[in-house]
Amino acid sequence: MQKDIFEESVELHQKYGGKLAVASKIHINNRHDLSLAYTPGVARVCEEIAKDKDKVFDLSIKRHTVAVVTDGSAVLGLGNIGPEAALPVMEGKAVLFKEYANIDAFPICLTTQDSEEIIETIQRIAPVFGGINLEDISAPRCFEIESRLQNLGIPVFHDDQHGTAIVVLAGLLNAAKVTGKPINQTSVVINGSGAAGTAIADLLNSLSLISEYQGGFKEILVCDTKGILSESREDLQQAPAKLALAKRTNPFNKRGSLSDAFVDADVFLGVSVGNVVTKEMVQKMAPNAVVLAMANPIPEIMPQLAVEAGAAVVGTGRSDFPNQINNVLAFPGIFRGALDARAKVISEEMKLASAIALANYLKSPTPNEIIPSVLDKQVTLAVADAVKKAALATVN
Amino acid sequence: MQKDIFEESVELHQKYGGKLAVASKIHINNRHDLSLAYTPGVARVCEEIAKDKDKVFDLSIKRHTVAVVTDGSAVLGLGNIGPEAALPVMEGKAVLFKEYANIDAFPICLTTQDSEEIIETIQRIAPVFGGINLEDISAPRCFEIESRLQNLGIPVFHDDQHGTAIVVLAGLLNAAKVTGKPINQTSVVINGSGAAGTAIADLLNSLSLISEYQGGFKEILVCDTKGILSESREDLQQAPAKLALAKRTNPFNKRGSLSDAFVDADVFLGVSVGNVVTKEMVQKMAPNAVVLAMANPIPEIMPQLAVEAGAAVVGTGRSDFPNQINNVLAFPGIFRGALDARAKVISEEMKLASAIALANYLKSPTPNEIIPSVLDKQVTLAVADAVKKAALATVN
Repeated sequence: MQKDIFEESVELHQKYGGKLAVASKIHINNRHDLSLAYTPGVARVCEEIAKDKDKVFDLSIKRHTVAVVTDGSAVLGLGNIGPEAALPVMEGKAVLFKEYANIDAFPICLTTQDSEEIIETIQRIAPVFGGINLEDISAPRCFEIESRLQNLGIPVFHDDQHGTAIVVLAGLLNAAKVTGKPINQTSVVINGSGAAGTAIADLLNSLSLISEYQGGFKEILVCDTKGILSESREDLQQAPAKLALAKRTNPFNKRGSLSDAFVDADVFLGVSVGNVVTKEMVQKMAPNAVVLAMANPIPEIMPQLAVEAGAAVVGTGRSDFPNQINNVLAFPGIFRGALDARAKVISEEMKLASAIALANYLKSPTPNEIIPSVLDKQVTLAVADAVKKAALATVN
Repeated sequence: MQKDIFEESVELHQKYGGKLAVASKIHINNRHDLSLAYTPGVARVCEEIAKDKDKVFDLSIKRHTVAVVTDGSAVLGLGNIGPEAALPVMEGKAVLFKEYANIDAFPICLTTQDSEEIIETIQRIAPVFGGINLEDISAPRCFEIESRLQNLGIPVFHDDQHGTAIVVLAGLLNAAKVTGKPINQTSVVINGSGAAGTAIADLLNSLSLISEYQGGFKEILVCDTKGILSESREDLQQAPAKLALAKRTNPFNKRGSLSDAFVDADVFLGVSVGNVVTKEMVQKMAPNAVVLAMANPIPEIMPQLAVEAGAAVVGTGRSDFPNQINNVLAFPGIFRGALDARAKVISEEMKLASAIALANYLKSPTPNEIIPSVLDKQVTLAVADAVKKAALATVN
């Protein structure tokens, strides 16, 4: 069955030559058409922009166009497969941008994996784009690349980090409604300290910016393959990104294994690899536990086992189980809202607004529905609206 | 009248937000669609390419996608207006690629005008593209940039150089049929030693590669604002590109002004600025003279004056006079043929084949029709076919 989908996908890509086309909004049937779209008419359009560079947003594709940029270093579960092999995924992302948000996204796959070269290349190609979606760039390089590009004048957003974090936060906000457990009494364990794990920890921390959630989560612990990240861990002294993350989390400087971290935890978030969580570990969690085991294609623990271990709410990254945590619920609306507001960055406020809008989209969340369906494209409108309002409300 | 076209063009660009969209060939309406276009199905497509990088041509947009790359340094007659202001022209070029050759072209406007940086940026973004159309990059930088990128594995073609040269050569081949003057008895004066003038001189020189035209043109002289380029001209010792061009032309090392160059010339080709050629200069040409005055929007000499001075065939770059010399007759078919042949470069043989096909497209050329109409899209098919055959016939 799975094999069929794989073969069918290859056939489809072969048949069409990928999944994207560039369409012209104007047809050239006579000299008048040619004079408007090209010379001599276009000269005036160029002059208008030359006089006032900001007019490029009004008079060109910039206002609705996003680059999907990768270096092919961390593609799906496939790893470092390089820029050519990454292209079908970037095309897929562009398809989702179009189908969910009517955004014109174009893939850019880079032959370099050097952070400085990636940063300068994005700076050089920026004029055409109204936003940059960084995709499948491995940690820790993705942190610096995104951070250094925040002054580009257009939003630069690493979806593997923040898209995931936003959907997870939305899920947790609804899970809290389902379990009745307040956020400030909720302790969270994250397994995985890469792009997604780091961004989840940071966004959960940011939740305290919202007055309703003052104080934020009770505790956030992040684990890697060696256990809980703590600032006193010897091996982290040589891993600056993880050390900094340890300092931003784990307020009581706990030490121990992943299994130790489970004791009395309210929420487990897996962004790591399959089958690293046992039924026994989930049984050690607090009552009304929430387990989002998002490793793909094999979750950290199969949902049935988590339920048997007593978890009240269970989600995965997969479409064949309830509560699919998938970035497509966030990134199309986030970019739509940012483009519509002509935002220069995607701020923490905009990320939080999108998570809250995504959660509130479900009027009555249930244990098996803490997050909307990935097929519900109306979600994009709700997220876009919230992001646009947040962008316009904060200093750009 | 002209003013109306300019205003209408601005309104049109404002209304649509430029002229391009990215279209998805697949719609996402259910989980199956999502599984084919994106995860999990797409993983197999990625793996196929990871195993054999050449499969990116079969399984992605690469085989039908071209980048239109500029640094905004020499845009239309507007000069160095920068990457943002250049974007409407690059979009226009992409529209023409789509409308004439069903090629998916995407604009890339660079914030750098440093040759090394342009070269390395194009190398870094190449994986997505099946060809690179360099556009509106000023001389002499355009020569080095194009030349250094010939080993990229995909065609890199500076249209302002070769597109113009190909259409000019096609026009001259038909003009020769009209006047009855053999190519090897035809001496040519080119005014303008930039991108277009240099490429025209080189392509006319290359014509001798075709056995039918052995020996090539009788003489080619290139002029700049100071007169005929000759290798003994003092000021050229500091201008390496022009000095090299002087050596590749002007076999008898003639010296003199543009006016001197006209004496007994058979062909005048203007790729310079308006109103630099007088009726008296044309009167000094040989009988049955050919004048292609292609400066835009004001030709080097108005066609009526050239006719009055005795020229047998007259053309311009404008649509409101006979014999419009316009690149759109060449570049769509050239890239279509190159992509279809999966050519790694656009060779001299391919350029010559496209010029000959373009000329032969007219069964019976006349003084007022030495070149097909820019609105005849069937031309593209004829050019593409000839280019594809030439590509497959020569070592790639």
